[in-house]
Amino acid sequence: MKTQYVIGVDIGGTNTVIGSMDAHGTILRRTKIPTQEYSTGDSYASALGNTINDLIAKSGLQGQIQGIGIGTPSGNMNTGVIEKAANIPWAKTESVPLAAMLTKITGLPCKLSNDANAAAWGEKEYGCAKGMNDFIMITLGTGLGSGIVAGGQLVVGHDGFAGELGHVRVVRHNGRLCGCGRTGCLETYASATGVARTACELLESRPETQSVLREITSRPITSKDVFHAAQRGDALALEIFDFTGKILGDAICDFIAFSSPQAIILFGGLAHAGDFLLKPLKEEMEKQILFLYKGKTDILISQLNDAEAAILGAGALAW
Amino acid sequence: MKTQYVIGVDIGGTNTVIGSMDAHGTILRRTKIPTQEYSTGDSYASALGNTINDLIAKSGLQGQIQGIGIGTPSGNMNTGVIEKAANIPWAKTESVPLAAMLTKITGLPCKLSNDANAAAWGEKEYGCAKGMNDFIMITLGTGLGSGIVAGGQLVVGHDGFAGELGHVRVVRHNGRLCGCGRTGCLETYASATGVARTACELLESRPETQSVLREITSRPITSKDVFHAAQRGDALALEIFDFTGKILGDAICDFIAFSSPQAIILFGGLAHAGDFLLKPLKEEMEKQILFLYKGKTDILISQLNDAEAAILGAGALAW
Repeated sequence: MKTQYVIGVDIGGTNTVIGSMDAHGTILRRTKIPTQEYSTGDSYASALGNTINDLIAKSGLQGQIQGIGIGTPSGNMNTGVIEKAANIPWAKTESVPLAAMLTKITGLPCKLSNDANAAAWGEKEYGCAKGMNDFIMITLGTGLGSGIVAGGQLVVGHDGFAGELGHVRVVRHNGRLCGCGRTGCLETYASATGVARTACELLESRPETQSVLREITSRPITSKDVFHAAQRGDALALEIFDFTGKILGDAICDFIAFSSPQAIILFGGLAHAGDFLLKPLKEEMEKQILFLYKGKTDILISQLNDAEAAILGAGALAW
Repeated sequence: MKTQYVIGVDIGGTNTVIGSMDAHGTILRRTKIPTQEYSTGDSYASALGNTINDLIAKSGLQGQIQGIGIGTPSGNMNTGVIEKAANIPWAKTESVPLAAMLTKITGLPCKLSNDANAAAWGEKEYGCAKGMNDFIMITLGTGLGSGIVAGGQLVVGHDGFAGELGHVRVVRHNGRLCGCGRTGCLETYASATGVARTACELLESRPETQSVLREITSRPITSKDVFHAAQRGDALALEIFDFTGKILGDAICDFIAFSSPQAIILFGGLAHAGDFLLKPLKEEMEKQILFLYKGKTDILISQLNDAEAAILGAGALAW
């Protein structure tokens, strides 16, 4: 039997990264095309399909590719369609059945999912969720993305759009305005953007409190600034992480009441804040968790390389 | 091929009801034993197993029973064990592997689950969730129970205890004290008990507001009293349902963000309040639902007979 490989495709806002990988998650070869430079779904699919065919030929892997996995914004796993992705010009106003289009060009089976689900599946194939049938993956980036695995299956819902935990409302009165048009969504607090908002709010509401963050005046404060300030022992920065960790820990208790996962896996920039975030998060969980679930769910930080995780996750869908 | 039947066992706080049923959900014969009158798991399992064998013999169904399904408090579907059920004397302090014990006595395969999961599976086999792969069943009784089906599977979690949506915290500050020891849990608001609590709170905090509920002085007010008052057009009773429906509708929006179900199915006494509860619930959902899910999830009232639903649900597990 020949060794088998898969192709992973991560469709990002700027670039689409394509890679070939083996069952151990070793990326053999990779290339990219610009996501934005196509005006129609047809022209994009054609460029992507030809690039995949080239990659396979150059790697000498013809006949050994098991399939293509795609992680994309607004990807519907039930249908293989990208459904109106706000930030992709060729999919902004119309739905693009990219999985079927790529199968036509490459002759390979193709599985497509949103990027958060792909990330979760990547953790199950190659990361710290190996062997787990019940876990939730939370990506703390600009927003908060999530992929849920229950009973060994991705939870995709009847319409393919399950797992929007960033839009669970954690503050029901006077919550922060969210990009979705509502208020109090988890991602307005527990995300890189949320941390920066908390920093601005606290700096403004406490003019008397000293903080190294006040030295940043020429540009907006970022979550990285807060992290560096926390490393220097800045009390306000520590308080910002404390506030963020508590809100996330509290929300996680509700997620556990839903699917009772073996682990919550955190990924993305903010997950690197380590104990600044994890300590208050775990303390709040310990306090708020329903007795049934006490001490049963691990909080883990993804060990996958940030640059490779998206493409590994996409590829994992194809096995 | 012979027609097949199953045995459904509903372990209630007072009685254990046992019934034989066919694939259409017609209950052929039923009997019961008292749940409380046994001091050990062994003596209970022995009585139950013998009763099941009797029922099969009397119905002339030997060789035609596909299996036994059990719905029980604290039932763990992963293991077939009743794990410390507070209200069952023979399972209060020790775990009882009832599924295995019954298989030994009856020679039949046996599936055991908590009552809320059994109810959900009953809706899928016999009720309004027929043909659905993604739905959430919410039982509005003394508390709030829930059974979640995602991708055609019951969500049971890594430990068998998923689906405690009654203990999602909907009021994070100054919430009502819950039986679980925490505050603000959904079931302290959206349940028969919750409605009665809301009635008491409003009657006390608004001494000037007239209501027919004030005529009830010799005993505690129940949710049924509030329902009857609402039927008479009592403004305070209508406000109580409005408050309850809004809280439940708001919580349901978060549940949808988790598993994007095709329908939410309401069951139990409070579900019979009909539009008094459903109207504010749906209005709040319409207002609060994330745009992705707008208009996609039906709110349905279970059409199963209250007296038969538990046993049908239990039996459904056995198919």
